[in-house]
Amino acid sequence: MEERVKSSFEQQQFMTTLGAKLALVTEGQVVITCQKRPELTQQNGFVHAGVLTSLMDVACGYAALTVMPADADVLSVEFKTNLLRPAVASELKAIGTVVKAGKTLVFCEAKLIGNDDTLIATMQATMFCVKNE
Amino acid sequence: MEERVKSSFEQQQFMTTLGAKLALVTEGQVVITCQKRPELTQQNGFVHAGVLTSLMDVACGYAALTVMPADADVLSVEFKTNLLRPAVASELKAIGTVVKAGKTLVFCEAKLIGNDDTLIATMQATMFCVKNE
Amino acid sequence: MEERVKSSFEQQQFMTTLGAKLALVTEGQVVITCQKRPELTQQNGFVHAGVLTSLMDVACGYAALTVMPADADVLSVEFKTNLLRPAVASELKAIGTVVKAGKTLVFCEAKLIGNDDTLIATMQATMFCVKNE
Amino acid sequence: MEERVKSSFEQQQFMTTLGAKLALVTEGQVVITCQKRPELTQQNGFVHAGVLTSLMDVACGYAALTVMPADADVLSVEFKTNLLRPAVASELKAIGTVVKAGKTLVFCEAKLIGNDDTLIATMQATMFCVKNE
Repeated sequence: MEERVKSSFEQQQFMTTLGAKLALVTEGQVVITCQKRPELTQQNGFVHAGVLTSLMDVACGYAALTVMPADADVLSVEFKTNLLRPAVASELKAIGTVVKAGKTLVFCEAKLIGNDDTLIATMQATMFCVKNE
Repeated sequence: MEERVKSSFEQQQFMTTLGAKLALVTEGQVVITCQKRPELTQQNGFVHAGVLTSLMDVACGYAALTVMPADADVLSVEFKTNLLRPAVASELKAIGTVVKAGKTLVFCEAKLIGNDDTLIATMQATMFCVKNE
Repeated sequence: MEERVKSSFEQQQFMTTLGAKLALVTEGQVVITCQKRPELTQQNGFVHAGVLTSLMDVACGYAALTVMPADADVLSVEFKTNLLRPAVASELKAIGTVVKAGKTLVFCEAKLIGNDDTLIATMQATMFCVKNE
Repeated sequence: MEERVKSSFEQQQFMTTLGAKLALVTEGQVVITCQKRPELTQQNGFVHAGVLTSLMDVACGYAALTVMPADADVLSVEFKTNLLRPAVASELKAIGTVVKAGKTLVFCEAKLIGNDDTLIATMQATMFCVKNE
């Protein structure tokens, strides 16, 4: 399971572009970390909401993958981000957690937390189990 | 108004990282374009949902800024992305439109369209008017 | 198709509680109407956000049902409501429209419009096709 | 604070229509309960998604009101509902909790739980503080 997530994560070239790392893979939960860098900022020098969302989307997607059949792939159906504070922390952590796993859909939540322990953003996400037939 | 949006967009270093361009700025509507590149892809080689969301967030945010007072800045409160199809097009266009402008909050919608005319994703977003006092 | 929607709508006792009517059923679009009544109001005398959401959810759900196989049933996966103005109109109309129909999931949008032609609320919704096997 | 919430809740005639009760008011959290009744059902006899959403919206709104100034009123800006299981329980409980309170916006989350301890639905909501001037 962990290998499957690692292998898929490494194929996501956009994660390399962001400098994101897969920090933890357990059944039903995945953590992604990312350093703040100038390349990731918006007009005020905070990390961009799109980056925060990308990290949480990936954390949710792979959390969902950990509870899917071994040959399945995962696609995002929808997600919603609420932004609570500017992302000023130097390191970011996206924690994605499975809340309800169905056969076809897996519902996840994510938190985006700074290394200063602030809750920066949250996500509700629906993931789709793509069966390889 | 157009100058203000351009100037702010150029300060968003993450837009340079994505290779995104400001294609149109009119009152209540902003269009952002972006070429598909390997650096922006997820595990299947499609453009990453986080990239699509970033483009729509920026299109909505600047659409909102065009209807705000001249000295205001814009922050995203929340947005929701629905992903309708894999992003296989070689060029992407995010069209953000103001639906309702209040004094403090501006509600926007965005569409993410491929240059093959497919509707790839949609967004509902709430933007906050930051008054400089 | 129209009969199927009518028959299901009549079984929704909550629609009777709201006084909602099925006003239009076409392929990919359903319109629900509802009169403002004191029983439906919140603390300021406006129609309750929960009522507006219920009308839009049903309009989206049945719009989705019109594009599903004849023996399928529909369930809501998720929806998001943005509230743009207080609902002061005496009659409300929820227009639900299919944006993208997949085999399992159907993505819809809805608008909630007053008889004074104001746009009161919008919805993005994902509907699930329940196949009867 | 509790009086203020009670007084506002009693003016929400739609809560009487649903048969909803204010079960708990503490700083940053409000619980609403509701019995399942035929008047609240959808086509399969489950409690309607619109009812579940209404209960969570009200729980979030009043949770937000508990952290607002004494003369403020609360309006819903937006909320998203994810539906995890059919609502078959005979009694429903909506727990709304403040996650981040700003001066103008208060971000809340809600859970909708059955008396059989199932998690039926969740909500992310943004509430607006209306200052009476």
